[in-house]
Amino acid sequence: MNASHLDSFLALCRAALGEQHVLTDAADQAPYLTDWRKRYTGEAVAVLRPGSAEEVAAAVHACHAHKLAVVPQGGNTGLCGGATPQADQASVVISLQRLNRVRQVDPLNNTITVEAGVILQQLQDTAREHGRLFPLSLAAEGSCTIGGNLSTNAGGTAVLRYGNTRELCLGLEVVTPAGEIWDGLRGLRKDNTGYDLRDLFIGAEGTLGIITAAVMKLYPLPRARVTALAAVANPRAALALLAIAQQRAGAMLTGFELMSERCLSLVTTHYPQLRYPFDRPHPQVVLLELSDNESEDHARAIFEALMETAFEAGVVQDAVVAESVQQSRDFWNLREHIPLAQVDDGKNIKHDIAVPISRIADFIDTTDALIQQAFPGARMVTFGHLGDGNLHYNVSPPVDESHDTFLGNSEAINLIVHDSVHAHRGSISAEHGLGQLKREENRRYKSGVELAMMRAIKQALDPQGLMNPGKVI
Amino acid sequence: MNASHLDSFLALCRAALGEQHVLTDAADQAPYLTDWRKRYTGEAVAVLRPGSAEEVAAAVHACHAHKLAVVPQGGNTGLCGGATPQADQASVVISLQRLNRVRQVDPLNNTITVEAGVILQQLQDTAREHGRLFPLSLAAEGSCTIGGNLSTNAGGTAVLRYGNTRELCLGLEVVTPAGEIWDGLRGLRKDNTGYDLRDLFIGAEGTLGIITAAVMKLYPLPRARVTALAAVANPRAALALLAIAQQRAGAMLTGFELMSERCLSLVTTHYPQLRYPFDRPHPQVVLLELSDNESEDHARAIFEALMETAFEAGVVQDAVVAESVQQSRDFWNLREHIPLAQVDDGKNIKHDIAVPISRIADFIDTTDALIQQAFPGARMVTFGHLGDGNLHYNVSPPVDESHDTFLGNSEAINLIVHDSVHAHRGSISAEHGLGQLKREENRRYKSGVELAMMRAIKQALDPQGLMNPGKVI
Repeated sequence: MNASHLDSFLALCRAALGEQHVLTDAADQAPYLTDWRKRYTGEAVAVLRPGSAEEVAAAVHACHAHKLAVVPQGGNTGLCGGATPQADQASVVISLQRLNRVRQVDPLNNTITVEAGVILQQLQDTAREHGRLFPLSLAAEGSCTIGGNLSTNAGGTAVLRYGNTRELCLGLEVVTPAGEIWDGLRGLRKDNTGYDLRDLFIGAEGTLGIITAAVMKLYPLPRARVTALAAVANPRAALALLAIAQQRAGAMLTGFELMSERCLSLVTTHYPQLRYPFDRPHPQVVLLELSDNESEDHARAIFEALMETAFEAGVVQDAVVAESVQQSRDFWNLREHIPLAQVDDGKNIKHDIAVPISRIADFIDTTDALIQQAFPGARMVTFGHLGDGNLHYNVSPPVDESHDTFLGNSEAINLIVHDSVHAHRGSISAEHGLGQLKREENRRYKSGVELAMMRAIKQALDPQGLMNPGKVI
Repeated sequence: MNASHLDSFLALCRAALGEQHVLTDAADQAPYLTDWRKRYTGEAVAVLRPGSAEEVAAAVHACHAHKLAVVPQGGNTGLCGGATPQADQASVVISLQRLNRVRQVDPLNNTITVEAGVILQQLQDTAREHGRLFPLSLAAEGSCTIGGNLSTNAGGTAVLRYGNTRELCLGLEVVTPAGEIWDGLRGLRKDNTGYDLRDLFIGAEGTLGIITAAVMKLYPLPRARVTALAAVANPRAALALLAIAQQRAGAMLTGFELMSERCLSLVTTHYPQLRYPFDRPHPQVVLLELSDNESEDHARAIFEALMETAFEAGVVQDAVVAESVQQSRDFWNLREHIPLAQVDDGKNIKHDIAVPISRIADFIDTTDALIQQAFPGARMVTFGHLGDGNLHYNVSPPVDESHDTFLGNSEAINLIVHDSVHAHRGSISAEHGLGQLKREENRRYKSGVELAMMRAIKQALDPQGLMNPGKVI
């Protein structure tokens, strides 16, 4: 791109956003150009930090007029490189972090209207201050933004009861690829007046426009949350326990996480202060959470009843119900330290997959066997949101092999795992999106009809192809 | 259209579907050419009754090749003329009624895979036989089809807890406008591998393709359902009761319906066998329903506790909790007979609107006043799904005016009501869709940006404009 073209672009941006919000210095830009996992580094003509939807519109309009690619970015905590520019195209990163206002809380409508750059934790806290629950919860909640959550349709630990980010959203404000503002900020539970544009932008990872604000659903704050751990013989037994828990607890069941013995021994090895609550190892442990609008005692009584049923049915080997809020926290800590213990253990080959819940046990058996066959001694570190059919199916090297060498098998192992996912009618990206990481691989599994429709929609809404190129599609 | 063109089309259809499923005789066609409310009557070159997705694809392909408009039709119970062909274009009605197989029930995954022509009640019954609940419930459930429910994103009485049809669907099979089959029949709770095509087809009223099958969510069957009626002074008090009920009952609250005194007196006048349960008239009555995974007694205890809170807060004037399944049924009967009593009373001007829940009382006050000003003596018959912000806001003539004459004011009254809805950031079609009825009106309220995006998507997926022309967009 020639200098005068660039100058005219920067002049437009500086006039619209203010000098200090147009970053061109390499050191200033650096934090925006590498993704959280440090897998991808890109380049940008400028990093823009608009402060309002109008400024986002002006910035996108300037990019559009100058044919510059637009890479929207939230908290930059994505796991697939979706918010990192590519090196092969003149790009502009638009950071939404300064759009961080809570525009409205409406407790009676059970909604909150927030700008895209609001940090997830701030959203949770604001809801709580109004006696409400915003249920989306995930590891990066201290730094990810709701705009990023929406653009990747983030999942997390409360999907079982409350759904993905998609299900928590009622309305959006979006800056279109041409730099216009679409006001779709509806706070309605029912609206059937045309095509569902909202859900098209959700999960599109910024390839169709930039989400600048959203109306999100709130829920009554439960009076109590109680967790329990149940030891089971295998994933099939865990599924039987899920069915019993759903029958007994209904919508009170807000968490159902599976952890294999290998996961938990990794955790207790690297974090010896975290106590394993059973007197002997069990092949699989399930964490269950109940949220109760009555009382802690009521939640515990439900737990007692459902565990009794599970024991009688021979589904559960051992179980312990948390006796305090602290113990509930401790149980969650075991679960949440698995990814951290994996980091301490060394690099591994990760998969974020989903299959129909009824096929999980079969998926694990089949895929474990295929990997053992191809890579004898490989160690599966499998855990995840069993209640959603979503597993983090991670593969570590045999005990005597270096983690770095083993990573060389990534492509072969991804192929085994994802082919098996596909055979089980599953998804190769359950909650992390596609970004740059899985864009190519996705084409292997999507039908031609589906890819053609995706391309037609992309072409229709972003005919110049400037929105986050090289991602998703 | 000339005879040889028509002959070649019909020959293709007869070869693909069988002679008896290609209806060209006027008497055979008649039931498919008029809508349920008998507002619209159209014409068709042929009515096709394919028996499988492949036959639907063949039929659409033939229409595409012959540039004939395609009008998909389910149970033909729609309220906006969305499934009735227009007279000004050579059209083919494709009835989905023969696609009526339940393809799979997966209790462990809590899903059911059904073809588009399965009657809603059959779906509910099949779920129940497997110990599961399919929660979608609406007046036409004995004859409407799930394909039609999906295409109009139907609402009904269980949206408060379970969402609209959209929220109950995990995956779709669709025949595209070019006659290809898209297999998106995923039974996954988490899947982030590209644009959300599913939600684009849901609610598109057949203007982007034909839904031929769907994976729908199931829920555990509650052990008990108990209803109660609460008398309140005004809609504002009803909202206060809603907040208390949500706080106390959480996800157990599965119904919250508002009925004005005028609605109930209409019902008891025309259906004297239905008993009004209070000793004196109250301005508004709320029907509440709790679904309980424990027991009937537990549900009643929750009702007692929440009504006590509501009495103490001065929110409720009187309340009665059903003491038997029959009494619960009786309470629902009062609610369900309002539309029937309205038919007996004479024609009225109907609106299916939604506003943010927090603005309902203000909406009713403001709009009632505007209508009184313009049409003194007009009687509002307002009831609906208060918990969803969805009202059936119907206007009847003054006592001394003929219903038929009063209908002449439809346009003026629609304008008052819908302008008011728009001012309250609401929706002019909450759960019935647009069809032919509200297509023009919708343009008054949608922004240019939104209409342009809708048109771009329509053009991208249906470049020949053959799918259900004259509807939605």
